[in-house]
Amino acid sequence: MEVNLARVIKDIETLATFTATPGNGVTRSSYSHEDKLAKEYLKNEMERIGLKVWEDGFSTLFGRREGKNPDAPVIMIGSHYDSVVNGGAFDGVAGTVAALEILRVFHENNIENEYPIEIIAMNAEEGETFGSGTGVSNSRALVGTLTEKELDTVKNRHGLTKREAMKEYGLIPDLEAAKREKGSIKNFIELHIEQGPVLDNHNIDIGLVEYLPGIGRYKVNFYGKLADSTAPMDTRQDAMVAASRFVLAVNQIVKSLGPGITGTVGELEVSPNSHQFVPEYVQAKVEIRTFDVETLKNVNLHDLLMKEINSIEAETNVEIELTEMARVGYSNPTPPSVMVKENVELMENICKDLGYKYTIINNGTGHDAMIMADFAPTNFIYVPSKEGISHDPDEWTDYEDIKKGIHVMMQLVYKLCK
Amino acid sequence: MEVNLARVIKDIETLATFTATPGNGVTRSSYSHEDKLAKEYLKNEMERIGLKVWEDGFSTLFGRREGKNPDAPVIMIGSHYDSVVNGGAFDGVAGTVAALEILRVFHENNIENEYPIEIIAMNAEEGETFGSGTGVSNSRALVGTLTEKELDTVKNRHGLTKREAMKEYGLIPDLEAAKREKGSIKNFIELHIEQGPVLDNHNIDIGLVEYLPGIGRYKVNFYGKLADSTAPMDTRQDAMVAASRFVLAVNQIVKSLGPGITGTVGELEVSPNSHQFVPEYVQAKVEIRTFDVETLKNVNLHDLLMKEINSIEAETNVEIELTEMARVGYSNPTPPSVMVKENVELMENICKDLGYKYTIINNGTGHDAMIMADFAPTNFIYVPSKEGISHDPDEWTDYEDIKKGIHVMMQLVYKLCK
Repeated sequence: MEVNLARVIKDIETLATFTATPGNGVTRSSYSHEDKLAKEYLKNEMERIGLKVWEDGFSTLFGRREGKNPDAPVIMIGSHYDSVVNGGAFDGVAGTVAALEILRVFHENNIENEYPIEIIAMNAEEGETFGSGTGVSNSRALVGTLTEKELDTVKNRHGLTKREAMKEYGLIPDLEAAKREKGSIKNFIELHIEQGPVLDNHNIDIGLVEYLPGIGRYKVNFYGKLADSTAPMDTRQDAMVAASRFVLAVNQIVKSLGPGITGTVGELEVSPNSHQFVPEYVQAKVEIRTFDVETLKNVNLHDLLMKEINSIEAETNVEIELTEMARVGYSNPTPPSVMVKENVELMENICKDLGYKYTIINNGTGHDAMIMADFAPTNFIYVPSKEGISHDPDEWTDYEDIKKGIHVMMQLVYKLCK
Repeated sequence: MEVNLARVIKDIETLATFTATPGNGVTRSSYSHEDKLAKEYLKNEMERIGLKVWEDGFSTLFGRREGKNPDAPVIMIGSHYDSVVNGGAFDGVAGTVAALEILRVFHENNIENEYPIEIIAMNAEEGETFGSGTGVSNSRALVGTLTEKELDTVKNRHGLTKREAMKEYGLIPDLEAAKREKGSIKNFIELHIEQGPVLDNHNIDIGLVEYLPGIGRYKVNFYGKLADSTAPMDTRQDAMVAASRFVLAVNQIVKSLGPGITGTVGELEVSPNSHQFVPEYVQAKVEIRTFDVETLKNVNLHDLLMKEINSIEAETNVEIELTEMARVGYSNPTPPSVMVKENVELMENICKDLGYKYTIINNGTGHDAMIMADFAPTNFIYVPSKEGISHDPDEWTDYEDIKKGIHVMMQLVYKLCK
């Protein structure tokens, strides 16, 4: 069983031509003309190797290699193939092509799989297209957490709602039809470029993920009152003072919850941002990451923050508005997405057998695998990103590294499908 | 005694033609070709009315109308005529032309002045040319606080030091020769556009200044360490957390000093300013304003801030660097510049007699009058700025408003010179 790298390269290079910005990276937004071309290409490649190909109620493309036991739960492998504007050729595509190549190799080697295997190719992973918190749509549709409301409220840069964009693309979304039954997926396995520098910096071939930290993101607006720097201190409604209190409150609350959580105010915008004026307005962005499922089990972080906010409002006379940025429908940061430990150990052994350098990386931002991990036994594999660059025309992963990643994933799928 | 507005308009419009950016406001940097043209024009106008004209050791232009008592201390009137890049036609020039017009009216009315009267026309008021803290140079030379060191260290946008720029301009600065003796100036009187919206908003003709608040400006750099939002809380060196503590410390210290002082952190730059990262670097800008001479008499604000900074450094592991931005040579915010109260009262009566609407405004940023107030009895008069716009090609003051300002100032000079 050998990966045919020429085929993989052809897939990646061909998919990269389906871009709205030729010469300036890959721009393949969800439900665009380029999305359709890419989907046609993938469909065609799936059909060539005899897969049963269909789309679910939410534009997700599947290619199924039937199992000896057709009623057994499925092993689902794949990733997304949409991109950000002026993105790269590897984010998402690497994992989609890996899944395709694995079933090609199985096909030409006449591998007998007990469990059915399905490639999943998703076209709405990037949150950029419809704004922060609107990404990982296909997996949310599949697990049943995507809402009709979201389809009608979030809009792309052309002003179309998700539903309208899908309609123009030629389909009427049917969320009910897109849902899978709990227990119907034996494993979900995704390969993805790291989008970070760890593997590249240390010349490591494979990153194995034990868990992806949970994420919560808040946007906090502080509405003060503009005043000259000579305004008496006791008349002020200083948005900067209120924001500073909030930064310290986040820090203190998160620290008090122990090592299973971090909280960062990494972004601040100040208006008018002049030393001569008491700031009228500050916007802060908070990122919460969680590392164990216990920390927030009996704690409502949102409530803790609101309590501090109420007291800061009372003390500073600044109006404060907190909104959730990420993951539509969540009112609190998510717990970490825990991967199947035994499979991580299996892959460690596979790497050792193949002579690949690997490491455990428990890091990353949003991926479909995080949604899937709450629904089905999930594993996630990183391949290196040159200098950690991603979402950029310069995004690059050496094809040899992709080959190694596919080999590890293929060996795992082989073991699981028997 | 009547101001000839046509003459005033011709002065202002002519001076506005001496700009390095025709069509895009007035750009008349210190020691530039345009500075030289403006100075020639002013010299010529002074000589026409028989003034004794000379420059001091620091390029400041004087025009003296001798007094009946030539040994008596002088009444000095005037302002500056340099501008920022793409500035307006009124900032500085309004006051320089006012002084010129007053002596023209005295000349044509054969006013007998007991005390000598000198026009002072300064060419290096704007801090922009050589960077923050380097402005009000002529007045600092005159009172003896400008240093040789400053001449050799601060640089303009062409990379020339103040001394080099002056040499190219054709003069070798002689700070000793520029100094005036304490007591040799009976009064200093400056008229200036408000550079703020108060008079324009309330349709007031004249702003009388009792004092200009003292200023201190600090730049504070917080050097933390870049980390991912998943970095454990206890390993962080979070520049944002340190800066937030500092913002609150400034607020608290200043409040504790009573109503004679305000302190504002109005400006914050965060790097990399992304919700995904613990900030590596923050720069804060602090503006202190003082309203009475007592507040900081027995208090060293710099020391109070440093004490807080040391404790924040120890608690956050962030390196903090505080530097003074404004007023070369000062290690603490300046006390307010207090104007001569009796003269303010005299001007109130003058305004009443002339039927002008006036108000007291105790506000504004750096002016030569602030330097002079520490050295000689000083008064300062504001005329309106349309919408408060200044340092901009759209800067505008109605000529009728300038005329009213000159009348008030002229009546005051008339009373003082007798």
